Amino acid sequence: MRSQFGRRQRSSFWSANVPAFDQAIKGFLGKKNNWVWAICVPLVVVLIAGWGMAAHAQDEAMTAEDVQTILDNIWITVAAVLVIFMNAGFGMLETGFCRQKNAVNILTKNLIVFALATIAFWAFGFSFLAAPSSGFLGFGGFFLSGSPETYGLEEGVGLTISVFFLFQAAFAATAATIVSGAVAERIKFVDFIIFSLLLTGIAYPISASWTWNGGGWLAGLGFSDFAGSTIVHSVGGWSALTGAAFLGPRMGKYQDGQVNALPGHNMSLAMLGCLILWIGWFGFNPGSQLAADLEVPYIAVTTNLAASAGGIAATFTSWTISGKPDLSMVINGILAGLVGITAGCAGVSFLGAVIVGLVAGVLVVFSVGFFDTIKIDDPVGATSVHLVCGIWGTLAVGLFDTSLGLFYGGGISQLGIQILGIIAYGVFTVVVTSIFWSILKATLGMRVTPEEEMKGLDIGEHGMEAYSGFLKDTSDMGGVS
Amino acid sequence: MRSQFGRRQRSSFWSANVPAFDQAIKGFLGKKNNWVWAICVPLVVVLIAGWGMAAHAQDEAMTAEDVQTILDNIWITVAAVLVIFMNAGFGMLETGFCRQKNAVNILTKNLIVFALATIAFWAFGFSFLAAPSSGFLGFGGFFLSGSPETYGLEEGVGLTISVFFLFQAAFAATAATIVSGAVAERIKFVDFIIFSLLLTGIAYPISASWTWNGGGWLAGLGFSDFAGSTIVHSVGGWSALTGAAFLGPRMGKYQDGQVNALPGHNMSLAMLGCLILWIGWFGFNPGSQLAADLEVPYIAVTTNLAASAGGIAATFTSWTISGKPDLSMVINGILAGLVGITAGCAGVSFLGAVIVGLVAGVLVVFSVGFFDTIKIDDPVGATSVHLVCGIWGTLAVGLFDTSLGLFYGGGISQLGIQILGIIAYGVFTVVVTSIFWSILKATLGMRVTPEEEMKGLDIGEHGMEAYSGFLKDTSDMGGVS
Amino acid sequence: MRSQFGRRQRSSFWSANVPAFDQAIKGFLGKKNNWVWAICVPLVVVLIAGWGMAAHAQDEAMTAEDVQTILDNIWITVAAVLVIFMNAGFGMLETGFCRQKNAVNILTKNLIVFALATIAFWAFGFSFLAAPSSGFLGFGGFFLSGSPETYGLEEGVGLTISVFFLFQAAFAATAATIVSGAVAERIKFVDFIIFSLLLTGIAYPISASWTWNGGGWLAGLGFSDFAGSTIVHSVGGWSALTGAAFLGPRMGKYQDGQVNALPGHNMSLAMLGCLILWIGWFGFNPGSQLAADLEVPYIAVTTNLAASAGGIAATFTSWTISGKPDLSMVINGILAGLVGITAGCAGVSFLGAVIVGLVAGVLVVFSVGFFDTIKIDDPVGATSVHLVCGIWGTLAVGLFDTSLGLFYGGGISQLGIQILGIIAYGVFTVVVTSIFWSILKATLGMRVTPEEEMKGLDIGEHGMEAYSGFLKDTSDMGGVS
Repeated sequence: MRSQFGRRQRSSFWSANVPAFDQAIKGFLGKKNNWVWAICVPLVVVLIAGWGMAAHAQDEAMTAEDVQTILDNIWITVAAVLVIFMNAGFGMLETGFCRQKNAVNILTKNLIVFALATIAFWAFGFSFLAAPSSGFLGFGGFFLSGSPETYGLEEGVGLTISVFFLFQAAFAATAATIVSGAVAERIKFVDFIIFSLLLTGIAYPISASWTWNGGGWLAGLGFSDFAGSTIVHSVGGWSALTGAAFLGPRMGKYQDGQVNALPGHNMSLAMLGCLILWIGWFGFNPGSQLAADLEVPYIAVTTNLAASAGGIAATFTSWTISGKPDLSMVINGILAGLVGITAGCAGVSFLGAVIVGLVAGVLVVFSVGFFDTIKIDDPVGATSVHLVCGIWGTLAVGLFDTSLGLFYGGGISQLGIQILGIIAYGVFTVVVTSIFWSILKATLGMRVTPEEEMKGLDIGEHGMEAYSGFLKDTSDMGGVS
Repeated sequence: MRSQFGRRQRSSFWSANVPAFDQAIKGFLGKKNNWVWAICVPLVVVLIAGWGMAAHAQDEAMTAEDVQTILDNIWITVAAVLVIFMNAGFGMLETGFCRQKNAVNILTKNLIVFALATIAFWAFGFSFLAAPSSGFLGFGGFFLSGSPETYGLEEGVGLTISVFFLFQAAFAATAATIVSGAVAERIKFVDFIIFSLLLTGIAYPISASWTWNGGGWLAGLGFSDFAGSTIVHSVGGWSALTGAAFLGPRMGKYQDGQVNALPGHNMSLAMLGCLILWIGWFGFNPGSQLAADLEVPYIAVTTNLAASAGGIAATFTSWTISGKPDLSMVINGILAGLVGITAGCAGVSFLGAVIVGLVAGVLVVFSVGFFDTIKIDDPVGATSVHLVCGIWGTLAVGLFDTSLGLFYGGGISQLGIQILGIIAYGVFTVVVTSIFWSILKATLGMRVTPEEEMKGLDIGEHGMEAYSGFLKDTSDMGGVS
Repeated sequence: MRSQFGRRQRSSFWSANVPAFDQAIKGFLGKKNNWVWAICVPLVVVLIAGWGMAAHAQDEAMTAEDVQTILDNIWITVAAVLVIFMNAGFGMLETGFCRQKNAVNILTKNLIVFALATIAFWAFGFSFLAAPSSGFLGFGGFFLSGSPETYGLEEGVGLTISVFFLFQAAFAATAATIVSGAVAERIKFVDFIIFSLLLTGIAYPISASWTWNGGGWLAGLGFSDFAGSTIVHSVGGWSALTGAAFLGPRMGKYQDGQVNALPGHNMSLAMLGCLILWIGWFGFNPGSQLAADLEVPYIAVTTNLAASAGGIAATFTSWTISGKPDLSMVINGILAGLVGITAGCAGVSFLGAVIVGLVAGVLVVFSVGFFDTIKIDDPVGATSVHLVCGIWGTLAVGLFDTSLGLFYGGGISQLGIQILGIIAYGVFTVVVTSIFWSILKATLGMRVTPEEEMKGLDIGEHGMEAYSGFLKDTSDMGGVS
């Protein structure tokens, strides 16, 4: 209740003890010079002080550990807010990279997906991830009904259920949002909603439990993916890939043997989205420490170095290839660096982070070209950024981690475990999401009609347009304004 | 001064005490085996240690309480920053929901309003809210000239004046910003400026003091509104309602017995605004704890669950009614959930939060229709979101609060007090803001000319347009580009 | 590793000590009533307790100082994230204030600049700033290879290298971003990239070391610039001025003796940018405390008061002069207030902050007019905001600082030192950046061709446009769409 403006008083440990000393001393001075007293009084004083200290520590006074626990919870709350802000980043990025006739549809998907993920994750996703696991998935404590121990936490120390749930729910939403970009401009809205619920409520938390739940089978093997290059990003990327494959390319994308650019409608929003994602990653990676300690800023720096290196590498790679520095490649290079460093951000050196980012920035440029070659139409490059660089980042742990990596004397076995993990997540996610998409395709149909795709999904799916009052070039809309 | 890069040294408590022990022990060993010494030395040691501890706690060493106090202040500073960021959210939301010809006007209002609120609140608003109150308003300590006690704070414990002021000023600005949306596209700029000063400097802080000032009359009765469903949002909503009523509807909105949609010009900005507001609410609600403790993440989770439930409920309600999922309703549903949970976020269960959000999400859809029926033209739905759901949220405390609520065995009396509070804020705000609007209408006139409204307020009020270089559909501008 | 969900256990100091007491007491009670024992036992208890305390403080238990150190690091990490977010603010502001045909170019510059600054600052910039200095620049510890002491930090206390680097790198990027706005719409992309590397890697860190490195010559003289009105903003502003002077004005800006407005294309983005910058400044100024303490919220309040006063002053000044409240002046007024308070934010009173902001808000309006008079074409007003108000803010320390300022009995000498510092930074930056620009002009050429400038840099430099699908007014593009 805020009506008492200030806050609750906390008893001061030291001031509370002073009277005990005062009383003991007064008693001593009031007695004769008696050696029994001389012995007993200091002892009593010591005992009172000792017991008083212990008792206060338990009952009333605030200890450094108490404050640390609160600091852990506040910091992870802030980190979760930064991760949640990434929904705005993905929303602006994807909308900007697509055409204006589909903007409302993309915006709606990116907005509702976090709401759906929150509710699905609250109901059962969080339990599949964090509840006691036999190796394959957690079970129990649905609807956040468990005790801290149910979700691998300890009562009174470290994170509360609330903040741990909030942070994990934000991660789950990320996986679903990645899919949104790859299936944009042609998927039915209802299909995306149902798929998001299935992914965030079931598929993602189950596979995430393999590593992040202490009882998971990959955790037992020592698979290392600190903040989720594989667990979040490649899972999102595989889901994006299966989605794009099931849907097929957009009309006009691959025509007469050519790849046609279907340029995005708002690069300002796309760049804003990239910077919001960059900011959000300072919650995503450093927050994955799940505590407030001195590793947090270290992780922030490796994250930032890799993002910068990725952006620079992609800029110069695309500049070299196409003759001009392409803004969409600067953006995707930064994101590639961020995805790449996500697995290893806590374990690589600063130089290692720069190398991981540089490689990711080059990879993403060629990957975008590759997927066009095999006619996987991914309007925003989500597969290249999240799947390809997610895999790279997970491998990079086996190479550059300063205690596990091959280049730092860590041996080949960790690299093998990293590859095993990458394959396990890939196979599981491809199989499960293919089942999801198949069912959706067989029942509701996945794709809007060609007429709707031509005119834009905004009118067809939502009955409104994004930019009322502006004159548009309708040459790609079948002449419809 | 930053020139000494590192920071000031803090003396270590324990190391500082070690020499005292050392000295005492040396003294003891240098003496003969004399029982007087045997008695005195340990006692002296104890006394030195005890006094040393007490003295250090006061003078030099940093205690856990000290760190907690700093943590409280840092966290509420961060929370205030999140609330201040809501100005960007409201700005993008309102601008996006209105027409491009009025964008500059709306942007200017939403930007200047926080500057005005800061200065008005510094000069007297904060005093009316927080200074010693006889029940109806606080008085004293104008221009932040008071001591901590003046504003209900304690010297050296908990929040400083600075952070408490910053957080409260951000709240005050919110109330004024809510009004901006409802009166958009037709109010004179100067009227809005003066009204904002009156609302943030006088009306809002006075009524807020009733509950949030320990001496307030509603605080005495036990009215419960943790973060301001009524105190901030319904007060903003009532002011919006009186403003819209005094102004009358926009030209062309209600014509020939029909309600005409005047669609917003930029749904990308509106969606971005919604997500910024969502983020900002993690400062608004958890920050209202006014301390860093383990309740903070709990409040963040109830807030997030209600927002999600509100968004989902509004999506499916509007989908059912109109046949298509309407992005503006997804947005308003999320905001409805957020406003609804604001009063009860610290006291309801997770399930309770979901229910509060679901109801708010349904309510807001019907409320938008209702206000159109009674021809209150509110371009962004501010009245439906902030007034209607603010009332709902305040009632919900009386129903769902786990210690006060009717459904949790809390009895009917709390519900009665909640209703009393809702009515008190409604009557006061309607009366006072009607006086403000009446004076403005009688002196300056409230509404721009029909010609200016047709051409847009951007040219008329500000002499510039928002989107230079784009071709616009001028059919609603009387043919003026 | 996150697989163990919870976090590492920290041994509790008090509970660990209780057994020591228990054991001592048991030993005492098991003996005969022997006075040697009677003396020794309490003493032993005291010694055990004392040593135990000291030992634990060193080895295992968490002290309040430890938590404070972590809190310092977490807070400055969060502050750095806020400062990094300013890149989005500058990006939106500058893009919005320029024409749509150059949007991609401006966005690309503002995005890549932070990546470049991070890498350049990591490689050598940070060393020039923070490594041991003979007065003119720091040297050593390149590529973050040094120990904490190398960069003026202490092992285990206060900030880690990581967070200090991150915060300083974000500052360096700010200086480069300021330049971007002034040279917009006509500079070659490659020139801006190279200049940014030179500025953030060499020029900025060298001059910043004069004050912020304990060994710097201006630090020795007592020059006071808390968060960088001069060190960051005027340095960015001088670089912007030389850049704009070397480039010359945009085509059509000064024609037939007239100043032609070339209006920005997106005021929504510009206003969003302003609010993001406002938010970011809560990291910039309070974060410059480089610690988490009770000064932090104080600095946040002076920052906020000056921003508000600046916005209000510029609004009414431009309203008075031109007859209408100009949104771009509201925006620049807020930024002027923020730049103005940056030097003195920790040392002025609340009233002082308001005065500093008011003066800055008036200054910026007249300054924009002045630079047009001398035909320095600065499309976004960066020189007026950052150079003019940066100088004003640095002078203001000599006037309004409550311990140093002339109006508070501080004497004229501090004001003299402030002027000396302003001149030193101005001369150095003008000379060094003129050399940079001269070399670029002589080798690569600085300016795009007139044809490219006419058609827009987006097509010419990047081969893409920002707003595909919208119809544009091509009257200023030589008829090219």
